[in-house]
Amino acid sequence: MSQIRHALSIKREDDFAAWYQEVIAAADMAEESGVRGCMVIKPWGYGIWERMQRLLDDRIKAAGVQNCYFPLFIPLANFEREAAHVEGFAKEMAVVTHHRLIADGKGGLIPDPAARLEEPLVVRPTSETIIGDAMSRWVQSWRDLPLLLNQWANVVRWEMRTRMFLRTSEFLWQEGHTAHENETDARAETMRALEMYRAFAEDDLSLPVVAGEKPENERFPGAVETWSIEAMMQDGKALQAGTSHYLGTNFASAANIRYQDREGGQALAHTTSWGVSTRMVGGIIMTHGDDDGLRVPPAIAPQQVVILPMLRDKPEDAALIAYCEELRAAIAGTAALGEPVRVLLDVRPGKAATKRWDWVRKGAPVIIEVGPRDMENGVVSLLRRDRLWDAQSGKPAFQAPDRETAVQEMPGILSDMQGGLFAEARDRRDANVVRDVLSFDALSGFFAADKKYPGWVEVQWSKPTGAGLAKVEEMLKAHRLTLRNVPLGASPADGTCIFTGDPAVERVLVARAY
Amino acid sequence: MSQIRHALSIKREDDFAAWYQEVIAAADMAEESGVRGCMVIKPWGYGIWERMQRLLDDRIKAAGVQNCYFPLFIPLANFEREAAHVEGFAKEMAVVTHHRLIADGKGGLIPDPAARLEEPLVVRPTSETIIGDAMSRWVQSWRDLPLLLNQWANVVRWEMRTRMFLRTSEFLWQEGHTAHENETDARAETMRALEMYRAFAEDDLSLPVVAGEKPENERFPGAVETWSIEAMMQDGKALQAGTSHYLGTNFASAANIRYQDREGGQALAHTTSWGVSTRMVGGIIMTHGDDDGLRVPPAIAPQQVVILPMLRDKPEDAALIAYCEELRAAIAGTAALGEPVRVLLDVRPGKAATKRWDWVRKGAPVIIEVGPRDMENGVVSLLRRDRLWDAQSGKPAFQAPDRETAVQEMPGILSDMQGGLFAEARDRRDANVVRDVLSFDALSGFFAADKKYPGWVEVQWSKPTGAGLAKVEEMLKAHRLTLRNVPLGASPADGTCIFTGDPAVERVLVARAY
Repeated sequence: MSQIRHALSIKREDDFAAWYQEVIAAADMAEESGVRGCMVIKPWGYGIWERMQRLLDDRIKAAGVQNCYFPLFIPLANFEREAAHVEGFAKEMAVVTHHRLIADGKGGLIPDPAARLEEPLVVRPTSETIIGDAMSRWVQSWRDLPLLLNQWANVVRWEMRTRMFLRTSEFLWQEGHTAHENETDARAETMRALEMYRAFAEDDLSLPVVAGEKPENERFPGAVETWSIEAMMQDGKALQAGTSHYLGTNFASAANIRYQDREGGQALAHTTSWGVSTRMVGGIIMTHGDDDGLRVPPAIAPQQVVILPMLRDKPEDAALIAYCEELRAAIAGTAALGEPVRVLLDVRPGKAATKRWDWVRKGAPVIIEVGPRDMENGVVSLLRRDRLWDAQSGKPAFQAPDRETAVQEMPGILSDMQGGLFAEARDRRDANVVRDVLSFDALSGFFAADKKYPGWVEVQWSKPTGAGLAKVEEMLKAHRLTLRNVPLGASPADGTCIFTGDPAVERVLVARAY
Repeated sequence: MSQIRHALSIKREDDFAAWYQEVIAAADMAEESGVRGCMVIKPWGYGIWERMQRLLDDRIKAAGVQNCYFPLFIPLANFEREAAHVEGFAKEMAVVTHHRLIADGKGGLIPDPAARLEEPLVVRPTSETIIGDAMSRWVQSWRDLPLLLNQWANVVRWEMRTRMFLRTSEFLWQEGHTAHENETDARAETMRALEMYRAFAEDDLSLPVVAGEKPENERFPGAVETWSIEAMMQDGKALQAGTSHYLGTNFASAANIRYQDREGGQALAHTTSWGVSTRMVGGIIMTHGDDDGLRVPPAIAPQQVVILPMLRDKPEDAALIAYCEELRAAIAGTAALGEPVRVLLDVRPGKAATKRWDWVRKGAPVIIEVGPRDMENGVVSLLRRDRLWDAQSGKPAFQAPDRETAVQEMPGILSDMQGGLFAEARDRRDANVVRDVLSFDALSGFFAADKKYPGWVEVQWSKPTGAGLAKVEEMLKAHRLTLRNVPLGASPADGTCIFTGDPAVERVLVARAY
């Protein structure tokens, strides 16, 4: 085993945070832009996001939700109407105050004092308040409900400490916004979106998640209930990977989304909102990455198969390239995971072995190398990213199927890898959720113990609110811990709250978190 | 003919501008947002844009261009480096100066004076300067070239007079940005993008365009050459529907995009940029709309076929809906224009005839109505949006094919409509380009004549520059006219410049414009 070289300089077990940065650079996914808190998403990273968008958008449309687009800028007045919301967001918003620049007389530019906006505009941190405005115009009667909208957009939250994909001042996301006749329907939509996210994460991203309700202190500002999916990263920390909010009539009241109900009276709509963002790309890296770089689940890999002809800068190269192009077309003619297989023939100059490691670091699911002798013998050298090393020899675990077999088996390989990455992450997660911690001392002891990446603890609690909950939050904060969510389907409580000593009413996940 | 009713209240020939607004409202495509200069793009309008995105994105990717994403905010310093560029854009940019709001003590919010940015940030009006920054990091050697990038993004230009889709402060677009080793390659890319736009406009949007070079005074700020595609609207005005710029080394010099060339020396890259935006949706409306609303070319119609069962709120409805669902699935199983046909079964409450007019106004290419008797007889009532009225009867021109025929012929109908809309627009355009105007007096006379929608004039000119061109611009401005472009493939000049009297060197299009 000791012979195994790795394609990165930092191992996960040594410094997870530094490893994360190295993967992003080594897989050429993104980089700092030089603009405070904003990143540049490079083609491979953006390609993964595009695949995620396509798959999630299909799920959104299948649910009858319609895409539209609302303004980037939100007038202050919209925010002022919902007190809890503005309280939650006012601290971190980009504010546009001018609409023109002029020369400062010293060779530079300054905002033109004569072009100050009468009312400053906020760059949207989320769009409940502007979409609520539109809903108030569009909803007149119960016949207009439910109104199911979504937008794909950029949003800005002025973060002080940023980290690529996980927390950036500008990020990309989708935000669903729906309005309903009553609480029952709106709650059902909240849960539908949550389940959609769970299926998207687990089936499309191979990302096992725990769906559950966030405690009161972790709610979206202005929400009645917030639900989340939480994923465990390889360092044991939790990543909130998507949220779905039941907003009650709070935003409907602020934006005046009223309708004539079935009895002819006036009623307030009940609204929901739900979103996932480019943050999820960070979750994919920290779940599927290994010491050789990223491993991209086949369903979201921009290229699922990369063919590398072993070129030698000789006239014979032409025949080899033609042979590989045929192979590419043959594989592209097969379908895996419900779509045509995405295959790239990489004929850039450079040695095949060098390019192989580029693609290993990027996490392309399957790499096929073809040399002149392979062509003669009708075989290919096939490397699966999820089975990279031969444990005995310490060398890359190339298989040598004949060409036809490689083509025929490709859909099965990709589908197997999709499921395998999920199972691996789920097993690791399941092995790292502890349920036998029965006191706060034991909890703090668990996280203080000499375990580098401690995982999650599911504890029983009495679900305190207000000041009681604030105290719990403080107790946890001292140990850098947070409440994640109350898992759907967790066992009922049968003991004592580890925070208050009161009878427990449910179980809640405690973890360090991103 | 006089019996023909129309689905709008305003006719194109009476008030084209008001008709345009009515179509947008009647087709439920977009509306004013209440935020200055920004619109809300509603599901039908956004669905058309999504289809446009998908088709153009396929063309962009097929050319080897890679999508990525760059920051919304651009530091002032980036702009200051390219003088012509900042001159062109500084007058209309949104400027972010603060990153927090605080209570103003009167129940409202104000930008927090303690959270003023050290350097204001501009909301991108276009991204040459920020992408140039990234290119300067990514391009080290000639081996890194060409670098072919694109992003789909929102941009903001603070427009004083806005008009939905055509001119809005925030709009959506794609912007391609490429860097090359030399002028030849960069010019070739400029022309490749131009030809891609021509094909996209004509083949996907049924929008005939004239591709050509913009005169110097209409160039993109900082460009060496700007090329455009120009489309003729039904009121004879020109719409610039896409542009492709050869930027020389201007932006490379400002952003320091230098590379080691094949001889080992240092060289500046030559760059290009090219973009089309949601403005094109306005062009589709003004090209294909008629007095009954929008007509969407099938390739970009979110729904190509809409099935309307004639429901009667009776138990028999269930069987009719089931029959229509089978029909839907059968049509969805066919392919037109290279993709599965998009069919909607509209079972919303309401009369089929009322819903029919909704879909007529929206411009769905084919509407199929099915009543209980049709079901019994195995026929359907089929209405083509491009052949809406029966000239003799003055009634909607329903056809009554049997069910199987309707299914089998659907791909042909859609493909025929795609080509027919193009031919109709091309013939109208061709009939309205005049080429025999030989003096400026004749030109001004032509546009002053009693013709409501006068079209374009192609004139010969001596291609003056600088002050000479400014004078031409002024002469034209007095008649509300502009130079559009010098069409590729126009006949060579053989006469006298109508502006200067000098020998003409080429032909240029003169028109009123959006």
